[in-house]
Amino acid sequence: MNPVDPVPLDQPTARTWLATAVAEARAGLAEGGIPIGAALYGPDGTLLGRGHNRRVQDGDPSTHAETAAFRAAGRQRSYRGTTMVTTLSPCWYCSGLVRQFGISRVVVGEAATFHGGHDWLAEHGVEIVLLDDPGCVGMMRDFIEKNPALWNEDIGE
Amino acid sequence: MNPVDPVPLDQPTARTWLATAVAEARAGLAEGGIPIGAALYGPDGTLLGRGHNRRVQDGDPSTHAETAAFRAAGRQRSYRGTTMVTTLSPCWYCSGLVRQFGISRVVVGEAATFHGGHDWLAEHGVEIVLLDDPGCVGMMRDFIEKNPALWNEDIGE
Repeated sequence: MNPVDPVPLDQPTARTWLATAVAEARAGLAEGGIPIGAALYGPDGTLLGRGHNRRVQDGDPSTHAETAAFRAAGRQRSYRGTTMVTTLSPCWYCSGLVRQFGISRVVVGEAATFHGGHDWLAEHGVEIVLLDDPGCVGMMRDFIEKNPALWNEDIGE
Repeated sequence: MNPVDPVPLDQPTARTWLATAVAEARAGLAEGGIPIGAALYGPDGTLLGRGHNRRVQDGDPSTHAETAAFRAAGRQRSYRGTTMVTTLSPCWYCSGLVRQFGISRVVVGEAATFHGGHDWLAEHGVEIVLLDDPGCVGMMRDFIEKNPALWNEDIGE
């Protein structure tokens, strides 16, 4: 195997990793924030960092779930073989993060409520695992229905 | 004029705005950091936020110059008509930020030492003003020559 390729991901592991991102999203929701969570896993399956959207909590529009997880992982010499797990399809900002730093794989909880840049990432060689998780869809659909203005602010619409 | 279009930018104003980004880059360099600076200007020319790369200073790989300026501007309901000014061509991560949030224009100090996503942004309707500033080129070239590993870490190479 090419050492830069991520280890093949089985469904149980993908679901376990998604649970970490979902726990982050729920923590954000409990804080009054936007319920999107993410986690960055290393090539060997080690959890490197996790986090959630903090627009409301910190008044910080730059902290999306993926950037929070990326920041929490600290400085890394390389992202080859790493996996970004996120409850929602990554927006252009977070897709750009994945592409720039050479993150090898993205596990996406759902892309039904928001379709970001994951197709673009796939075109550029990033492995995309789309889980179509009903729990993620429900959480996000409920949030958007109750907070349309906040949601639109978070995606610049 | 369509209200979402940015006000036409004359060269003296572009240079003045770039000076703000250069001052940020120099502040970062003085702190031992990577000398890239940025500033976000509002549709009426008001400075909304400014900042610089903080990878070294904070051990934070998520704070590029553009994300620092964006964060410093706080929550904004819309970025229509705003201008992101940066000393260096924006990487994919920062280009994704500009696209996702609908920032209307990017003033780029230089794209000679690093060619990021500004062509892609232009294709997607963002006005790009490339200044080819020799001072910006010299500052970055000197830094990369002295710190190749740190520079490669910052762009994920």
